Amino acid sequence: MGTEFLKIKESEEATEIIQNLFDECYRAEGEEIPVADAYGRILFEDVLSPMDFPPFDKALKDGFAVKAEDTFGANDENPNTLEVIDFLEAGSTTDKVVESGKAIEISTGAAMPEGADAVVMVEYCDKGEKSVDILKSATPTLDVAKKGSDIGQGELLMEKGSVLTPGKIGVLLSQGFKTVNVFKKPSVGVISTGNELIDQEDELTYGKIFDVNGNMIKNDVISCGGDAKFLGIVKDNYDQLKQKIQESLKEADILICSGGTSAGLGDVIKHVLDELGEVYIHGISVQPGKPTIVGVVDDKIIIGLPGNPVSALMIFNVFVAPAITKLSGIDYNFAEHSINGILQKRIHSPVGRMQYQLVKIDGDKVYPIFKDSGAIFSLSTADGYVKVLKSVELVDEGEEVEVFLFNKLI
Amino acid sequence: MGTEFLKIKESEEATEIIQNLFDECYRAEGEEIPVADAYGRILFEDVLSPMDFPPFDKALKDGFAVKAEDTFGANDENPNTLEVIDFLEAGSTTDKVVESGKAIEISTGAAMPEGADAVVMVEYCDKGEKSVDILKSATPTLDVAKKGSDIGQGELLMEKGSVLTPGKIGVLLSQGFKTVNVFKKPSVGVISTGNELIDQEDELTYGKIFDVNGNMIKNDVISCGGDAKFLGIVKDNYDQLKQKIQESLKEADILICSGGTSAGLGDVIKHVLDELGEVYIHGISVQPGKPTIVGVVDDKIIIGLPGNPVSALMIFNVFVAPAITKLSGIDYNFAEHSINGILQKRIHSPVGRMQYQLVKIDGDKVYPIFKDSGAIFSLSTADGYVKVLKSVELVDEGEEVEVFLFNKLI
Repeated sequence: MGTEFLKIKESEEATEIIQNLFDECYRAEGEEIPVADAYGRILFEDVLSPMDFPPFDKALKDGFAVKAEDTFGANDENPNTLEVIDFLEAGSTTDKVVESGKAIEISTGAAMPEGADAVVMVEYCDKGEKSVDILKSATPTLDVAKKGSDIGQGELLMEKGSVLTPGKIGVLLSQGFKTVNVFKKPSVGVISTGNELIDQEDELTYGKIFDVNGNMIKNDVISCGGDAKFLGIVKDNYDQLKQKIQESLKEADILICSGGTSAGLGDVIKHVLDELGEVYIHGISVQPGKPTIVGVVDDKIIIGLPGNPVSALMIFNVFVAPAITKLSGIDYNFAEHSINGILQKRIHSPVGRMQYQLVKIDGDKVYPIFKDSGAIFSLSTADGYVKVLKSVELVDEGEEVEVFLFNKLI
Repeated sequence: MGTEFLKIKESEEATEIIQNLFDECYRAEGEEIPVADAYGRILFEDVLSPMDFPPFDKALKDGFAVKAEDTFGANDENPNTLEVIDFLEAGSTTDKVVESGKAIEISTGAAMPEGADAVVMVEYCDKGEKSVDILKSATPTLDVAKKGSDIGQGELLMEKGSVLTPGKIGVLLSQGFKTVNVFKKPSVGVISTGNELIDQEDELTYGKIFDVNGNMIKNDVISCGGDAKFLGIVKDNYDQLKQKIQESLKEADILICSGGTSAGLGDVIKHVLDELGEVYIHGISVQPGKPTIVGVVDDKIIIGLPGNPVSALMIFNVFVAPAITKLSGIDYNFAEHSINGILQKRIHSPVGRMQYQLVKIDGDKVYPIFKDSGAIFSLSTADGYVKVLKSVELVDEGEEVEVFLFNKLI
């Protein structure tokens, strides 16, 4: 029993151990997916331009492709008349060459014909049957985008870590990308333990309650960029939990359990992890983190969250979400996303333990969500948490507090 | 030709016409989906609590279930000794009744046994072989959550329009919901038109460019909460476009086309819509909205965006995104999401026309993205737009501007 206490960690220490274990056990991976389905995904590598863009000298206006020198001195009163020898839509080509005295009618986006070096906008042209009067002088390259003028082949198009917005998807499409290499979503399995838990498919009998943590934590993992599966409920029983963990390790790279970790009658997960692998954290010296457990089995991390849904959501967001978010490639600094507000109800905090208090926000009002029975309903408005330092016993109603927000994705 | 001008609309008028057409043609619908897969979806109706919660009197602490009166006067020095007649884990039940002088050991979350009205925490108990010494007096209901004390059957649990966060999903699960009625995603088909456009599967030949708008707008519709499909590229040709629109109307409720709407050589979409249905807007008096077209065929809205990707993204976000977002059930007031910054490059604006200028933001610096050739690459950093009023000709470098942001979802 004596060594047990060594595994109770302070908050900062726990954060560091968890991040280090993630760094040791996992390496971010990329996967090729269609660009068309990439909304919100994150680039796994720098993308270089595969070609010059535009890929040809391109007309930027509707008008006439000409030799600029043929227009010098032209104005409304003294137009220069040119022979129109062809017509080029965007996407079409011609064998004809624009020689001195000739012009080709051209649409925006069309490739410039050989011999021409400028476009005179249709507004400055007076079109006849087979000729055109040019009413304004043009300089060479006027309303022409030169081949490769926007970006050259091999230049950096987009950086690793970019979140693929519609605009970024547009850029990849313009360069002809069919697929793109994005961060693969880490595979996370979620297990609930507890004799009192039943599935929503089951009938509620006396003394039982519906499992909340399984699919709640699954969805929170999804919000961190993970690929999460709820793997079911097991009894708070050594053999069943052990078997479930062993099976689940085949289905997911990270396992998150909840329940079964209280210091009371259960605490079976600790014994299972001790047998199957190694326990690194057994209790975090924070409120409400006492029953939290972190172990490694077969180079895969297994995390045990408290069974109470308010505590489970809190501990997941403070200690686990940052590591999963980072592995998912999301560049989100949790510490930087906070807002200040006025506390609406006093928070008592145990001296000598950091407290994380779940809160909801309404304008600049901050309401603590206490872990009592009715708190399950306040979960629906949980926006983030307030940190109460070790040395503080009380934060009073009316004090200004900093709220760290949960929202993780774009 | 004379009536044509009647269909050129001012910006505010166009916004109103589009929203009114959406209100006439579509009605938001709900669909039942599993709660477990509901992250980010939006409640289509108020959810009432189907049951009392907690569903039974519940122990809030590990300890002993007792009659409170049996503990009156107890303290460290004068404990009251009670006979322990059973042990109740969370989820288990017992036939035994707590009569005076008796106690049942109980775990957090377990249903209170008959006869008991309080829990004495394990810290205030000294457990013997078949008895327990109670070291502290308890009042009735101490550490007991009464049945229905958190919420009663039929009370409002969650409001229509709520975005389903992990916490809200947790609340639904706690009440035993297997499925939830959420806003159905509006079905949107996207078509690109242009002779110069090729698919990313095709080889790039001289004069052609890869289609950008199809899958870019598809992904932007997804970011508005829509269910979008890119239906392919058609030539800028009356018969092909007409056939494509007719086919596409069978696959989607809203159609968004781009290209084929310039005042130049194409403009086929206008003629197709005139034949198949009715055109309500043909040109919006904004920069860059001139080629925008809005029509209705078979009670379905068809929108034609400009072919230039920068203009297409801009017009989609200003005029179409709000209507799709609203139909998706997302309560997002675009006008309210703006930030101020300092313009880094002068914007020239045509007098007499509202201008929407696409911009990117870097800290408090605002960079305009001009619709010239290279703008396609700036799309990757487009964050929103700046409005330049009709009466303004120039917004100078260094001026403070308001940027309306594109980001639409949670």
